[in-house]
Amino acid sequence: MVKKMKKIRSVALYSSISNTNVAQILNQLNEICLNLNLKVLQPKSSALKAEKIKKAFSDSYIKSTADLVLAIGGDGTLLTCSRRFGIKGPPILGVNLGNLGFLNDIVPHDLTNSLLEIIEGKFILEKRFFLETKVNGRLVKDVALNEVVIHSGSIAQLMEFEVFMDSNFVYRQKADGLIINTPTGSTAYALSGNGPIIHPQVKAISLLPMFPHSLNTRPLIVKDSVNIKVMPNKDSYISFDSHSTKKIKKGDAVEVSKTSYDLTLMHPLNHDFYSACREKLGWSLGIADKKQ
Amino acid sequence: MVKKMKKIRSVALYSSISNTNVAQILNQLNEICLNLNLKVLQPKSSALKAEKIKKAFSDSYIKSTADLVLAIGGDGTLLTCSRRFGIKGPPILGVNLGNLGFLNDIVPHDLTNSLLEIIEGKFILEKRFFLETKVNGRLVKDVALNEVVIHSGSIAQLMEFEVFMDSNFVYRQKADGLIINTPTGSTAYALSGNGPIIHPQVKAISLLPMFPHSLNTRPLIVKDSVNIKVMPNKDSYISFDSHSTKKIKKGDAVEVSKTSYDLTLMHPLNHDFYSACREKLGWSLGIADKKQ
Amino acid sequence: MVKKMKKIRSVALYSSISNTNVAQILNQLNEICLNLNLKVLQPKSSALKAEKIKKAFSDSYIKSTADLVLAIGGDGTLLTCSRRFGIKGPPILGVNLGNLGFLNDIVPHDLTNSLLEIIEGKFILEKRFFLETKVNGRLVKDVALNEVVIHSGSIAQLMEFEVFMDSNFVYRQKADGLIINTPTGSTAYALSGNGPIIHPQVKAISLLPMFPHSLNTRPLIVKDSVNIKVMPNKDSYISFDSHSTKKIKKGDAVEVSKTSYDLTLMHPLNHDFYSACREKLGWSLGIADKKQ
Amino acid sequence: MVKKMKKIRSVALYSSISNTNVAQILNQLNEICLNLNLKVLQPKSSALKAEKIKKAFSDSYIKSTADLVLAIGGDGTLLTCSRRFGIKGPPILGVNLGNLGFLNDIVPHDLTNSLLEIIEGKFILEKRFFLETKVNGRLVKDVALNEVVIHSGSIAQLMEFEVFMDSNFVYRQKADGLIINTPTGSTAYALSGNGPIIHPQVKAISLLPMFPHSLNTRPLIVKDSVNIKVMPNKDSYISFDSHSTKKIKKGDAVEVSKTSYDLTLMHPLNHDFYSACREKLGWSLGIADKKQ
Repeated sequence: MVKKMKKIRSVALYSSISNTNVAQILNQLNEICLNLNLKVLQPKSSALKAEKIKKAFSDSYIKSTADLVLAIGGDGTLLTCSRRFGIKGPPILGVNLGNLGFLNDIVPHDLTNSLLEIIEGKFILEKRFFLETKVNGRLVKDVALNEVVIHSGSIAQLMEFEVFMDSNFVYRQKADGLIINTPTGSTAYALSGNGPIIHPQVKAISLLPMFPHSLNTRPLIVKDSVNIKVMPNKDSYISFDSHSTKKIKKGDAVEVSKTSYDLTLMHPLNHDFYSACREKLGWSLGIADKKQ
Repeated sequence: MVKKMKKIRSVALYSSISNTNVAQILNQLNEICLNLNLKVLQPKSSALKAEKIKKAFSDSYIKSTADLVLAIGGDGTLLTCSRRFGIKGPPILGVNLGNLGFLNDIVPHDLTNSLLEIIEGKFILEKRFFLETKVNGRLVKDVALNEVVIHSGSIAQLMEFEVFMDSNFVYRQKADGLIINTPTGSTAYALSGNGPIIHPQVKAISLLPMFPHSLNTRPLIVKDSVNIKVMPNKDSYISFDSHSTKKIKKGDAVEVSKTSYDLTLMHPLNHDFYSACREKLGWSLGIADKKQ
Repeated sequence: MVKKMKKIRSVALYSSISNTNVAQILNQLNEICLNLNLKVLQPKSSALKAEKIKKAFSDSYIKSTADLVLAIGGDGTLLTCSRRFGIKGPPILGVNLGNLGFLNDIVPHDLTNSLLEIIEGKFILEKRFFLETKVNGRLVKDVALNEVVIHSGSIAQLMEFEVFMDSNFVYRQKADGLIINTPTGSTAYALSGNGPIIHPQVKAISLLPMFPHSLNTRPLIVKDSVNIKVMPNKDSYISFDSHSTKKIKKGDAVEVSKTSYDLTLMHPLNHDFYSACREKLGWSLGIADKKQ
Repeated sequence: MVKKMKKIRSVALYSSISNTNVAQILNQLNEICLNLNLKVLQPKSSALKAEKIKKAFSDSYIKSTADLVLAIGGDGTLLTCSRRFGIKGPPILGVNLGNLGFLNDIVPHDLTNSLLEIIEGKFILEKRFFLETKVNGRLVKDVALNEVVIHSGSIAQLMEFEVFMDSNFVYRQKADGLIINTPTGSTAYALSGNGPIIHPQVKAISLLPMFPHSLNTRPLIVKDSVNIKVMPNKDSYISFDSHSTKKIKKGDAVEVSKTSYDLTLMHPLNHDFYSACREKLGWSLGIADKKQ
């Protein structure tokens, strides 16, 4: 974690959600920013804008101009925001709608103080990597912060694929698909498939076959610097963070690797991954203690 | 992986097993070494000695004198050998009794060629870290290459413990115990407890509660540089690689962290972790293909 | 298990697979049947016919006329055969293409003896139930021998549903879908999703959420006489044995229950469910014993 | 579920716990019983007695005399109470100390009404079976309501055993032990080992190897009428509900089967197994909904 960055003068406000709750927080954030003498930038792509802001800017303008992007919503909004502004862009700070998220850690009831501290330089910057893919050697535009899923396209439909790590054969597998996820994604879809929780600072990528047609499959954790090659035996699909999908053909070689650039997340000083785990995953609660 | 080391002139032959199979390989290895003009050293602690060797040496002499230790046996022998000679000692090379192991990769039918290549400098050196523990701030003598297990001492007997990472609270857990394992240990006991397989080069430690009294527990993978503190709520035990055990008391603070030194494993050039996985774990075999 | 049935005089030969292996077994079976004075019936719907047979019959004629249907192929063929002829039809006996299956237990190298014993009345009859569904109270035509899957239609796409047992609320679940399987299906798709193996004679149905968005979900085993109601919160799909699919709408009530009729499987006297488990699942093989 | 039984005239009050909370409920229950003209019997073995009761009776007297035993405490107390009085004894009704249990379903704030309804005959009787064991053909005195565990005696210590069902070989397994549990026990220790939840009315027994030394092991559900034989390859232990333990020797044949008699649990009319699951296991709570 690094704490150095230039002074924050302009802040973009983004949300992918449109409801009264978000609207209220947006207006409140706009007001706080103005009081703190911060220039507020509104992306055209935001689902909602603060009422008092007339002008709106393109994503590329925001990316090159804003010193910070506030993502208002849940982890889903931060995911969209990261894919939109976070690739070689400014830091992103998540503002939650109520509950602590894995990616969001500023809460509505404390907006003014939280922003004030951040303006004063009291924050943590944390790097998260994306996954990028090549199909037959050509880079695919989409990237994933959570996971790349290579799948048959349909539930309960087997495909077969071979996996290689830096050209070394790993295994051939019949399954509905394969989840390749970052530590960031280890608390998302991969967790539903019984994958391990990987602390964001572990330099690793996880591979998790979906409904594998064998009993001796386990999640496999490899170095984040590895080149993963997957060869499907039939036409199938690549899904990026469940946001976008690309068709691939039988025999295509899909390479998955970490991007050379990172997403920069901004956190308040009291940020704590394990606290989010306890909150979101119900850790510390024994079976019998659930209601005590 | 590093390939530089001084020329090999003396080789120690070690086994923790005593049977005719081991005896035969020992004698064969002794002969090959003499033919290759290698000095053969025999540890007093070896369960068997080559027939033609009279003299035997202390572990500390072996550790400071031998350029290489050959561990003859299964993964268990290599584990014992590593704990005995591998801590700030020479590289260790595993000679299998028949099958490829996760840690052993020279096979009996190819001993001469394998040793010849190694003498010629054709090998890979790979670092593996140990886990060490402190109880109430005092270093415990035993270390673990696979896993440290903190447990209640008895099956189906709950204990409760709190876990901290670099002083940050992680969770309180009721369970039979807690497995803290290295990537090396991820294919050992932790695998039986449904832990993920972690490639040896991933810089990570895994935590796995045993029979946890809650449903929302998952394996947790953290950076290998972390200090893990476990506070048991009753008298319990620390087990090191299932080889040695230490009693601890209610309220003791057990710290687990990676050692500053590493074990050096020597491998032939064709060493392949995934090949061992396929061999030992039956990977690539679909349910229906088992016998085909 | 019951052993009483009328004398076998007519046998139908069915396969859903068309290759030279199946062709050879079909011709062989035809010859054996003729030698045993059995009337051979050939279904029009079979993917292959024995060379010397000219006439072919409709499924309904076969169902009402044949005393036994031989399904030549793997478990997939027996599944199709069961859905085609086994609903209120004659017993079905599976002839494998090489390996023991969970549902097939006559092997090619022993066809004559196996059939002879069966003609002599040396066999076991075993009942297996199907699952049928009602959507908003109307019976759906398709049934499932293995499993009914209610799903979102697409991988990594959440749906939410409520589950009731005989009108008692069980849970609300966010997941990619829900597998409801018979003991017969416990060694099929549900096994890939980490479901338990249920002996065919246990009177139970298993429920298994797919990629559930919660950590406290476990497979749930209920009585086979129960009426299971699933209420999806969006348009989704019902899949029967991965063979046929039906669209359902948000708010539809899907009821799943065992059929009043059973499939009758015929087995040779040495039939053994656990032997199939050992063969197909690799049981009895410890990690280290794989290749010994 | 049956609702017929003779009129309740005498009630035994039992607890295995001794604290002020239990004391208060005991006194309260005693008073309510007297007001309802019920004879109150106090077992000598109860950890606490109601203050106003002088006389105490032996377990065998209670068993032959009481029409109902109230077990005051958690599921642990009901377990002890069942093993003490429930074997060929009167029905047992669990009174919780605060939270709903899997086995206890009368709550303190509603004692008078609950008892009144029961006296009026408004209750459900539910049968639960015990597991009994024979070692080399001789019946062991202890029985288990939850589970029989055959284990090596110590954590992370392998044993090997063979399992037979009604004399049919199932598998040979290296593991720390084997859990054999009833549906009642499926929400206890077996659940911590990732076993499925089995509704109490399913006529089944579950087998679950502990830390199996193979990857292709899954929970196995068999009919409750089966005779399970386990042959350990070394001296080991049988544990009954984690309450009592018996040593066994290498080569001993351990047979496990359901008892010919049942435990009778009494429930109020609104008893609901799934409600207990939701309460105790946190069902219906999606990851993101934990705190909402």
